[in-house]
Amino acid sequence: MTDFTRKDLEEIIDVARGSKKADLLIKNGKVINVFNESVEDADVLIHKGIVVGIGKYDNAEKVIDVQGSYVAPGFTDAHMHIESTMSIPPVFAQAVLPLGTTTAVIDPHEIANVAGIPGIQFMINSSEGLPIDIYFMLSSCVPSTPLETSGAHLYAEDLAIFKNHPRVLGLAELMNYPGLLAKVPEVIDKVAKFRDRIIDGHAPGLSGHNLNAYLSAGVMADHECTVPKEAEEKLSKGMWIMMREGSLTRDVLRLLPIINERTKHRIMLCTDDKHPEDLVYEGHVNFAIHLLIKNGIPLPLAVRLATLNSANFFGFRRKGGIAPGYDADIVIFKDILKIEKVFKNGKLVAESGKPLFEFKRELHDDAVKNTINIKPVTFEKLEIKDEGKKIRVIGIHPDTILTDEMIFEPKVKDGKVVSDTERDIIKIAVIERHKATGNVGLGFIHGLGLKKGAFATSVAHDSHNIIVAGENDRDMLLAVAQIEAMGGGVAIAKEGKILGSLPLPYGGLMTNKPITETAETLLSLHKIAKEENGLSVSDPFMTLAFMSLPVIPKLKLTDKGLVDVDKFDFVSLFKEE
Amino acid sequence: MTDFTRKDLEEIIDVARGSKKADLLIKNGKVINVFNESVEDADVLIHKGIVVGIGKYDNAEKVIDVQGSYVAPGFTDAHMHIESTMSIPPVFAQAVLPLGTTTAVIDPHEIANVAGIPGIQFMINSSEGLPIDIYFMLSSCVPSTPLETSGAHLYAEDLAIFKNHPRVLGLAELMNYPGLLAKVPEVIDKVAKFRDRIIDGHAPGLSGHNLNAYLSAGVMADHECTVPKEAEEKLSKGMWIMMREGSLTRDVLRLLPIINERTKHRIMLCTDDKHPEDLVYEGHVNFAIHLLIKNGIPLPLAVRLATLNSANFFGFRRKGGIAPGYDADIVIFKDILKIEKVFKNGKLVAESGKPLFEFKRELHDDAVKNTINIKPVTFEKLEIKDEGKKIRVIGIHPDTILTDEMIFEPKVKDGKVVSDTERDIIKIAVIERHKATGNVGLGFIHGLGLKKGAFATSVAHDSHNIIVAGENDRDMLLAVAQIEAMGGGVAIAKEGKILGSLPLPYGGLMTNKPITETAETLLSLHKIAKEENGLSVSDPFMTLAFMSLPVIPKLKLTDKGLVDVDKFDFVSLFKEE
Repeated sequence: MTDFTRKDLEEIIDVARGSKKADLLIKNGKVINVFNESVEDADVLIHKGIVVGIGKYDNAEKVIDVQGSYVAPGFTDAHMHIESTMSIPPVFAQAVLPLGTTTAVIDPHEIANVAGIPGIQFMINSSEGLPIDIYFMLSSCVPSTPLETSGAHLYAEDLAIFKNHPRVLGLAELMNYPGLLAKVPEVIDKVAKFRDRIIDGHAPGLSGHNLNAYLSAGVMADHECTVPKEAEEKLSKGMWIMMREGSLTRDVLRLLPIINERTKHRIMLCTDDKHPEDLVYEGHVNFAIHLLIKNGIPLPLAVRLATLNSANFFGFRRKGGIAPGYDADIVIFKDILKIEKVFKNGKLVAESGKPLFEFKRELHDDAVKNTINIKPVTFEKLEIKDEGKKIRVIGIHPDTILTDEMIFEPKVKDGKVVSDTERDIIKIAVIERHKATGNVGLGFIHGLGLKKGAFATSVAHDSHNIIVAGENDRDMLLAVAQIEAMGGGVAIAKEGKILGSLPLPYGGLMTNKPITETAETLLSLHKIAKEENGLSVSDPFMTLAFMSLPVIPKLKLTDKGLVDVDKFDFVSLFKEE
Repeated sequence: MTDFTRKDLEEIIDVARGSKKADLLIKNGKVINVFNESVEDADVLIHKGIVVGIGKYDNAEKVIDVQGSYVAPGFTDAHMHIESTMSIPPVFAQAVLPLGTTTAVIDPHEIANVAGIPGIQFMINSSEGLPIDIYFMLSSCVPSTPLETSGAHLYAEDLAIFKNHPRVLGLAELMNYPGLLAKVPEVIDKVAKFRDRIIDGHAPGLSGHNLNAYLSAGVMADHECTVPKEAEEKLSKGMWIMMREGSLTRDVLRLLPIINERTKHRIMLCTDDKHPEDLVYEGHVNFAIHLLIKNGIPLPLAVRLATLNSANFFGFRRKGGIAPGYDADIVIFKDILKIEKVFKNGKLVAESGKPLFEFKRELHDDAVKNTINIKPVTFEKLEIKDEGKKIRVIGIHPDTILTDEMIFEPKVKDGKVVSDTERDIIKIAVIERHKATGNVGLGFIHGLGLKKGAFATSVAHDSHNIIVAGENDRDMLLAVAQIEAMGGGVAIAKEGKILGSLPLPYGGLMTNKPITETAETLLSLHKIAKEENGLSVSDPFMTLAFMSLPVIPKLKLTDKGLVDVDKFDFVSLFKEE
């Protein structure tokens, strides 16, 4: 919201009436009107950062002829985690503004799990003053479960610190719906504290009376629907629905049937988690809009889902459309996958895919630097003594983060259970890295295809301990040591050498390097992992990153041990007969 | 917004899940779902003032079987002046709750013109604690013009006093659009002060670049459209449209064509000004919904305009629909003109047209009592010396508050211009009543049909001085004296006697009597005015009330004299040849 003085408003009135020169005039555009879902040939007049005129104008300092391109309001990502882009907020801004995103509502859930309150503060500070509107929903589930060691534990009182910050909108996705329904006090307290603000939801499959209870407590929106029936029940019960098109989870096409003339005003778009290479090579919210258009949704309606609807949900009264009095956040394109120009508050901030602004690249914030705090890991720590029993193995599959529990005879060498590349049973370890507890969770994983060496990452949902998998312990220790040396990141080792790595020194999650560089490094690492280590999964680090998330069934590994998610408890690696 | 403790929420969760008894269960209703515009057979479970369940339930302390009636969310009047109901807020609540209105967004414009800041404070205080949600928009145009004497002059700083009150939403209808476009500093300052809140509009006929300027300054909504084309331009420029169905101005049917699947999410209902007899004998928002349904708008959509849409515009996140987590403001009916039951926050507050709550009827507030402050009016004050010229006469017509300027030869008696009942040219006077200035504006009016006596009112838009019209000066003075004696109100005199009167002791605008009593008194006064005084206009007091509103063309009379509204300046009663 821009504050205007009396003089500003006098000028704005004169400019709108055509009697004074505007800052900017966008001529010959096809203006996407999200209020009445039409496309109009009109000039857009801009002054002091807001739209002041629609219609015919010719009095401006600067005139841009867009030659028949579409002129759309800037897009909003209604729910996302910047950390998934592996970029700190200014780099994220440079990445998504050229794609047309001018507003992002973020949940700093990952950095909050690593660095707690100072982590959230870092995200707020580092997103200040950028030519993008970054709003915050406060992470509601830190840690996600008591089955793992996270870097922080946030209670209602902690989140309350930020409640009245002008860019804080409410409480982020309440993932712990079982906890809420079970009336866990710390979950209830957060809802009670934020019931007068927006409370975002995350409740895949929740239905009937349990959904009623979840909503009665105060939750307002959901981005976890994967089938129309689920979304339709949620819409009918007053929820706003965010259709998600992220890197791993892609719901837009399967939810297409929920968009109709009765419900379309309560549906938004979001990406949730979008990885650097997908942002760079595919797109952001513009990609989701592209999918909608390609599948028969009229352009003005598709754009509306990503603009006016989010503005309505979040209460952005002067965003979401191109009209007098609205913020001049404007996207110019003929092909939505090739955005031509992006204006933020009337300023050209991106052109032909390139950001047109700089930022202070070196952010010094001790709270999120040097977050890798490990008790030295020795060979002994990785050893698994044979117990003469079968072992539980995490079974993975392409395109899902659900896993199976598989049972195998172990491969034993010198009394130790070891990786068995022939049967694709690879040792995996989760090393606690926040408090130097020395916790190391050990297990085995099937489906990676790894033949040689090891690979590791400090991006590991949701507690972001270090996960490493390898054919031999030496390379595993080496990959972990490399991550420690970098202050976080991902690494690949083979035969006693580091073959490649990506430093993520901000919380072990993010870098300040340009996103194209990050994306290229990742792709080259994927290639190395495939060619040198034999890995058969398409994104080995992301696959690893979800192996310690103990809220997604069935078998997972945290720093505290193997978890049977269905039982929500630990299980032994060795299975009794 | 209800605040809930941890214990409350625990209970709410248990109740919603069916494991604990709810406060209330509404069974066998046809629930109007405004989220997906459908009607569902479902039970509605209520606990601690909110809806906690939709679906099948049977566990409640109290079960109400509504036997197939509709179950709708409580209605919202998006813009209105309580003063037009001639009732103080608690009486208003008793009047409209039985009609299904559970939320009203009011502009205390009339009392603010009489009593300024203390007048607004009175409305806030007296609407506190009622089983209806009364929200405030702060009156932006006090006084309306410099051509009259009002009881107060409110600047941006005055309004700012209330800006952060929890029931204040923003700045009320910015009627002075010419002033805004002319950059009058005090108008601009109010907009600047409230640009971060809601700014409501009032700009009949404004279009093109001037509309752009009005919107750029910050105005967001309008309730003055009378033709579809006007509303469509305003909708396309991002405005929200309120369709008004009041006593004098009835726009719902003429605006019907603007409701379509692209725009329907930005349209609300309001009444603006609804008089006591119309409230009692016709209805409130329910009457507007009734008109919509009767003219082909599906019931769920018609209800949505008066519920969810207003909630979206004003940012009421937990109102506007029947769903878990939403306030249990619920209306039960088979025929929307005969509301059966009304629940506010889960409590039955009206049944079969009767309110079920009491209030403190005697409100002692010096600020709005004894507001009639007149310098004694003598016969001399009403005398009009003949100047041997023709006179300008206000010409009125049925069903419009627009007037003509008519030119007549005066009737002269003893050197004075006097009323001429044969030609229906009646003397009219506006007596300043706020500051005892002694100002008396004098003129003549054609079209009342008055034959004998006089009638007067202290309800006189927008400054609410006393207006009196009469066949003779003695009865005129008598009627004014009666109003003075009552501390405000309306009165009819004939042949030296008061034939009838209605005291409006709160600001000279409102009473604390039940609205049915007020409505009946008014109807009996209309009858007297017709039968005893010969008046031919259907509502003589309302007709008089608009004769001193110098923003509606053409000829009007204020305490300062005759006004040519088109010239926005005073003119002489006598016309030069």
